[in-house]
Amino acid sequence: MSDLLPRGFRFAGIHCGIKQDAKREDLALVVSDVPASAAGVYTKNLICAAPVDWDRQRTPGAAIRAVVVNSGNANACTGQQGAEDNREIAQITADACGTSVENVLVMSTGIIGEYLPMECLRTGIPTAAGQLVSDSDSLLAVARGLMTTDTVHKLACRSVATPQGEIRIAGVAKGSGMIAPDMATMLGLVMTDAALESEVAQQLLAEICDRTFNCITVDGHTSTNDTVLFLANGQCQHPVMEIGETGAFAAALEEVCGDLARAIAADGEGATHLVTIDVGGCRSIADARQIAKTIAQSPLVKTAITGADPNWGRIVSAAGYSGISFDPKQLDVSLNGTPIYGQGVPIAFDASLLSESMRNHHETKIGLRFGEGQSQTRFWTCDLTADYVRINADYHT
Amino acid sequence: MSDLLPRGFRFAGIHCGIKQDAKREDLALVVSDVPASAAGVYTKNLICAAPVDWDRQRTPGAAIRAVVVNSGNANACTGQQGAEDNREIAQITADACGTSVENVLVMSTGIIGEYLPMECLRTGIPTAAGQLVSDSDSLLAVARGLMTTDTVHKLACRSVATPQGEIRIAGVAKGSGMIAPDMATMLGLVMTDAALESEVAQQLLAEICDRTFNCITVDGHTSTNDTVLFLANGQCQHPVMEIGETGAFAAALEEVCGDLARAIAADGEGATHLVTIDVGGCRSIADARQIAKTIAQSPLVKTAITGADPNWGRIVSAAGYSGISFDPKQLDVSLNGTPIYGQGVPIAFDASLLSESMRNHHETKIGLRFGEGQSQTRFWTCDLTADYVRINADYHT
Repeated sequence: MSDLLPRGFRFAGIHCGIKQDAKREDLALVVSDVPASAAGVYTKNLICAAPVDWDRQRTPGAAIRAVVVNSGNANACTGQQGAEDNREIAQITADACGTSVENVLVMSTGIIGEYLPMECLRTGIPTAAGQLVSDSDSLLAVARGLMTTDTVHKLACRSVATPQGEIRIAGVAKGSGMIAPDMATMLGLVMTDAALESEVAQQLLAEICDRTFNCITVDGHTSTNDTVLFLANGQCQHPVMEIGETGAFAAALEEVCGDLARAIAADGEGATHLVTIDVGGCRSIADARQIAKTIAQSPLVKTAITGADPNWGRIVSAAGYSGISFDPKQLDVSLNGTPIYGQGVPIAFDASLLSESMRNHHETKIGLRFGEGQSQTRFWTCDLTADYVRINADYHT
Repeated sequence: MSDLLPRGFRFAGIHCGIKQDAKREDLALVVSDVPASAAGVYTKNLICAAPVDWDRQRTPGAAIRAVVVNSGNANACTGQQGAEDNREIAQITADACGTSVENVLVMSTGIIGEYLPMECLRTGIPTAAGQLVSDSDSLLAVARGLMTTDTVHKLACRSVATPQGEIRIAGVAKGSGMIAPDMATMLGLVMTDAALESEVAQQLLAEICDRTFNCITVDGHTSTNDTVLFLANGQCQHPVMEIGETGAFAAALEEVCGDLARAIAADGEGATHLVTIDVGGCRSIADARQIAKTIAQSPLVKTAITGADPNWGRIVSAAGYSGISFDPKQLDVSLNGTPIYGQGVPIAFDASLLSESMRNHHETKIGLRFGEGQSQTRFWTCDLTADYVRINADYHT
């Protein structure tokens, strides 16, 4: 994987003492050898964490050198103290990496409403800075350093070959619970050695987030800390790209974001199924997304999938309360490719065979086609299991 | 209880064969001895059942004589056949009760997308009509005849003493899953011997539903069949009431609807806690309701209550993504009366004592006060347990 790593980035992920388990990384540091263009997309939650406020003021930005991330504590709802702690983290990182505080971005994730254990960070950040290297093991440690209730790390890489040279993209993300679309869900950090002006980076990131990270939900609860950062440091040979020239690169970037988004839905807390919802034949993409999101957030649809039950009534009735108008007589629904509802009436199908298919596949595919227009979207969620309840009823403040 | 029954109504609830368990009523019949003013409030789901279409065309109405209800089959998503079956049910009821088909209202609840077992109803309705009496046992049988996944029947009565005579109100309802606000959630039937024009009845019902049945959620999934019907047959001695003259009567009617709504939330599928959410200090009641509903629908808030965890971060962050703007620095939050968040920062409290209080009380009370205005609302929901998942993952189509 090392020959896929974007050039000019170094990585470190360590345990600094925020998480109780000393084997689990809770601090990640990424440094660009040269100033990178940086873009950010953030939670739309009115209650947002100190690092979100900090980063929002500094993106798009032209000279970012470092991103520091802690997991285990969100530094959210912590008022003035939280803002001061965040600034100190940026300052320690700047000092340890030989840059200015203004060139450091910060992300935090974990419990809401507790002050950060600053002693851990005061020791941990210089330690991490001393371990920075450009290899895949360190990037993996960064991916693990973002995790909270995640059961697997999320990492995706792509390489784009162009006549002017190869461009590389790597992304890491975390997310499993408190995941809802309509924002830059979760934490994500995407790095490339492409050369992009920060405004171009921002525009690309915002567009791609709308089709990837903003198309997932686990539980419909929008976090206070959701952040996706995108760094482009220009260390490949390909010249600077303007909007309109980013074709193959933008496609690869969308693949990286799509892989990470899908991985978050698949790793939803307690999930046994990834659910992919394709909605087509709508008047607009916004309509299609609203319908897909309503289905994805229905606990009745989610529990039907847990139980491998081809219960189309729950799917159709969720579409019906999405707030989008449509002609029910033109609605077709399929489940794992089997037509189950056509032109507004039930279609006969072998329920036990379809249930078997749902039970045996980790991914359940729901398809809806309306007769309203040509717009379509794809959305990801997971099923709702008794384990989701246990994880969240037992997780204590 | 018999001296609380509204005069001029007769009741019957029987098992006709729709439910598998022969001990469970699945058919309920209510007849008014004289034509009653009738009002209705219905689901806003675009996909709605045949009986909803039927009733919607006939309310407000001045001469309703009978309401027939079946449980176990929703007659939803059944197309033209469903509409024909519904008309036949109304016709059989009219014949059995000596009235015209236009004076019969119908409600159905249960599984979506299966055709009604009409043989059961062709036999059952005349049988029920032969058992109509005006006593509390029969009203209880009606309440039981509405139940699906409900674990208890829902029944509420009030009597209003006025100088012109006593007015009586009785209501029955069902609902446990597929319950979400912003419509007339579930099935409900409220009867009174008051004299009201049907337009007055409709206005009263709509206003009161907005503060009762539309202020509950179990799982955020709006059903295809939700209906609340209200019959007023004028068999008390009190003269006809106009809007503006309904004071004590309207208050009692709201108590009946509120009791039933609260009972539905308390009996939410798998629930171990009723959750009452009071939101105040908002710019409008709509704002307060949107915030309360967002909190009530968050699976993270619900599972925290399951686990008796005073996790205010989940409550505050849910308010933050409700879409309503507010100043976080003026937000106060309490849990079971204990202040836990004040003016935008955490308040020190004894977490184990508060957790104990949550564990030991069936009702959990969440209070939020904003600094935006004077409007307030009360909202009810329940917690989310592993049993909710089991009930809905195992319930098969």
